[in-house]
Amino acid sequence: GDWVIPSPPSSGTWQTFVVKEESVWHKIDKSCPMEYAATITVNPLTALRMLEDFVSLASAGDSLVQNGATSIVGQCVIQLARHRGISTINIIRDRSGSDEARENLKALGADQVFSESQLNVKNVKSLLGELPEPALGFNCVGGNAASLVLKFLREGGTMVTYGGMSKKPITVSTTSFIFKDLELKGFWLQNWLSLGKVKECREMIDYLLGLARDGKLKYETELVPFDEFPVALDKALGKVGRQPKQVITF
Amino acid sequence: GDWVIPSPPSSGTWQTFVVKEESVWHKIDKSCPMEYAATITVNPLTALRMLEDFVSLASAGDSLVQNGATSIVGQCVIQLARHRGISTINIIRDRSGSDEARENLKALGADQVFSESQLNVKNVKSLLGELPEPALGFNCVGGNAASLVLKFLREGGTMVTYGGMSKKPITVSTTSFIFKDLELKGFWLQNWLSLGKVKECREMIDYLLGLARDGKLKYETELVPFDEFPVALDKALGKVGRQPKQVITF
Repeated sequence: GDWVIPSPPSSGTWQTFVVKEESVWHKIDKSCPMEYAATITVNPLTALRMLEDFVSLASAGDSLVQNGATSIVGQCVIQLARHRGISTINIIRDRSGSDEARENLKALGADQVFSESQLNVKNVKSLLGELPEPALGFNCVGGNAASLVLKFLREGGTMVTYGGMSKKPITVSTTSFIFKDLELKGFWLQNWLSLGKVKECREMIDYLLGLARDGKLKYETELVPFDEFPVALDKALGKVGRQPKQVITF
Repeated sequence: GDWVIPSPPSSGTWQTFVVKEESVWHKIDKSCPMEYAATITVNPLTALRMLEDFVSLASAGDSLVQNGATSIVGQCVIQLARHRGISTINIIRDRSGSDEARENLKALGADQVFSESQLNVKNVKSLLGELPEPALGFNCVGGNAASLVLKFLREGGTMVTYGGMSKKPITVSTTSFIFKDLELKGFWLQNWLSLGKVKECREMIDYLLGLARDGKLKYETELVPFDEFPVALDKALGKVGRQPKQVITF
């Protein structure tokens, strides 16, 4: 039969059989890898909406800055931005394996990758080289990593918070608002999906899956048979091994 | 002769004689008290622009929250909001004389006045009574007083920072952005004035001076002869007595 996914995304796909109105299903091109079809409406959709909804970036020549760049959203941001000619400045954690993480992100198209400790300098903008000051920043970490995004932003720039991995709040100086005219906002995909944008959602899914099929949007997933669900859960929670996205097969 | 003030506001009015293009002067109705004409383009203009530029408040039935409510901007916000049927929730410092400050603000039209310690409760919104949750907040203090403004805001609300009297930064939780969808922005009058809004500026001056003339916009000023400039300076800096706005007369 056909491959379909619910669009707009809904819960309840973890079912052997389900009958629903035809209108809630979106047919998927089978030439696209199944694991991308299964995950496209989560992290890649978040990345795409955040690129579109906040700041009108020039199609080429602008830049953005993000922390948590190794996350799947972060990886998608790098690739989607690169596809439009937008440069990315990426901030990652200091940890073992950060050199490898840096090379992986550069292979995806990242222009600059810094670990937090590398940004412990007086003027982070001196590290930008030829890149323009970013007008848009994404924060999924909080704490110091959020402050670093703010430091990179140009006057009048916007930082969008979509996660808080460090569990630390965001601290902002008064001058950032008054003299640098920064704006801080939030993004939550569920909110966007609740706006009833059925048509836009399907167009975005096709766009993203097209990029995935053509090898222009990549992120690591691991297909796991249902029988190995407990192991997949441990991996997803970081208890075992690395943490590629776990996709259960039936 | 006529009374004039430079519009848009410019520096260099501290002069006995000055010759400039007629176009930079705005003629003032002499029935308006001189001390208001001299100060109208500073704090009252800030209050008016902040009310207009960020959130479309319903002409009646909406509310806003602000800290630093005893400042002249704060007093103007209360009166301009009241004039439009917008309720105000006002946060003041804990200090001797705060009861008197509360009564003064209520006399200007404040709906609710809380000292910071009164807001040390689990759910500040339980204190709103019949007032709607505010969609707009003004922060000129930072630190805990800014967090209190954020706590009062309704989902999707906006906090505008225009000062940092406590010299402490603003701390924001990740959930405020993602799940409460708050926006944080800044306001600086100098920036607005640099946008070349000559006509709007004159209309606002006339509007505000009209309110002042009719007794609908009040704030305390003290007229000081030029000879007493050193005392005026000490008062303005808070070294002597209370701190009404010092207006020098020649």
